[in-house]
Amino acid sequence: MTKVAQTPLVPDNTLITKTPEEGRALAVVLARHSIHAMQGELETLKSGRAHYANDAQGLIAASHVIAVEFGTIAAANNYWR
Amino acid sequence: MTKVAQTPLVPDNTLITKTPEEGRALAVVLARHSIHAMQGELETLKSGRAHYANDAQGLIAASHVIAVEFGTIAAANNYWR
Amino acid sequence: MTKVAQTPLVPDNTLITKTPEEGRALAVVLARHSIHAMQGELETLKSGRAHYANDAQGLIAASHVIAVEFGTIAAANNYWR
Amino acid sequence: MTKVAQTPLVPDNTLITKTPEEGRALAVVLARHSIHAMQGELETLKSGRAHYANDAQGLIAASHVIAVEFGTIAAANNYWR
Amino acid sequence: MTKVAQTPLVPDNTLITKTPEEGRALAVVLARHSIHAMQGELETLKSGRAHYANDAQGLIAASHVIAVEFGTIAAANNYWR
Amino acid sequence: MTKVAQTPLVPDNTLITKTPEEGRALAVVLARHSIHAMQGELETLKSGRAHYANDAQGLIAASHVIAVEFGTIAAANNYWR
Repeated sequence: MTKVAQTPLVPDNTLITKTPEEGRALAVVLARHSIHAMQGELETLKSGRAHYANDAQGLIAASHVIAVEFGTIAAANNYWR
Repeated sequence: MTKVAQTPLVPDNTLITKTPEEGRALAVVLARHSIHAMQGELETLKSGRAHYANDAQGLIAASHVIAVEFGTIAAANNYWR
Repeated sequence: MTKVAQTPLVPDNTLITKTPEEGRALAVVLARHSIHAMQGELETLKSGRAHYANDAQGLIAASHVIAVEFGTIAAANNYWR
Repeated sequence: MTKVAQTPLVPDNTLITKTPEEGRALAVVLARHSIHAMQGELETLKSGRAHYANDAQGLIAASHVIAVEFGTIAAANNYWR
Repeated sequence: MTKVAQTPLVPDNTLITKTPEEGRALAVVLARHSIHAMQGELETLKSGRAHYANDAQGLIAASHVIAVEFGTIAAANNYWR
Repeated sequence: MTKVAQTPLVPDNTLITKTPEEGRALAVVLARHSIHAMQGELETLKSGRAHYANDAQGLIAASHVIAVEFGTIAAANNYWR
């Protein structure tokens, strides 16, 4: 099996972003990297993704994780006020 | 398959809104855009939506995500006090 | 199909309430309006409600959403201290 | 069907309690009253309860709601420091 | 059926602990006592536990509750800074 | 059955880390140790892990727990600002 490249859990090792848009993109990345940390085999990951990406409940569950990560990142950035 | 138009994750790149009503609408949009970011194929998205929109558990799960997003947006706006 | 009447997402456009009891009632309303925003057909909504209202897991899931909404409203009101 | 007695959502209309123990008991009550607000028929409620009380997943889901309610109550009481 | 001994919901009636380790142990206890409060019959509890303890989804759901309780306890202790 | 080695719930008994990357790694460890605290038998743990690691819903649920733990750790570290 192909291994996914070893990536840091937090890109650039910071929660601070210039804009809400970048903060949101970071939230998506954090959620994704958690899954990579648990599940390194690329093929399984791709087939798993194929599965939940067509499944409404899986998409909602994943969007919930992004919402929680974003709450932390937004607080870190003092909500970009 | 038709691709959905590329949209920003955070409309207007800000969490600040004039009113709680607009903040709530933004929470709905953030939740929706997370799903778009993961699932770009318009047809699947529409059929998936058709599915959970008739399913009580799916609706409750989606309303949970909106609640979490709204918590972040409300804090960003200092609760519109 | 009968459409539900168009309602605002946040009644009176404020999170501020006089008492915890009113804040709690607002939390229930916010959760309900999220679902209305996603699912406008009255008949499906009623049959969906009939379903989860008799289902312990659905009731617990819905009470979870109310708990999250209430956390935001309570913070907005400085916990009615 | 027997209707449950109409109860307030927040007993004594306050989140302030003397001790963490009382705050915890309040969290249990808030979670329970949410369910009463949605599901007023006493018989269904009792049979629903019988069901989840013997089901590990239902018990864990219910304890999750209590945890969220308690987080709000603890913050309201400045954590009884 | 054997009843479990009546225990307080919050041991020692405080959220304050000396260390993060003790705070974490308290989070586990709070989650457990919620379940005891709802489900007093010792035999069912033991068989229920046997069930979810061998089930990955049940373990993840239970660890989620611990995470939420710990968030409250950590805040109460000002994160043991 | 082989028992897993007894480990502390919070490594080094602190939530303070030097960087977001280390904080994130701690979040993964806290989530994992909760599961160890509930489920000590190594073989079952490994087979359970094998199961959810190939299951998209299980991976999303586990990443949700990491997100919640990370929120607490990030707050403890004042978001490494």
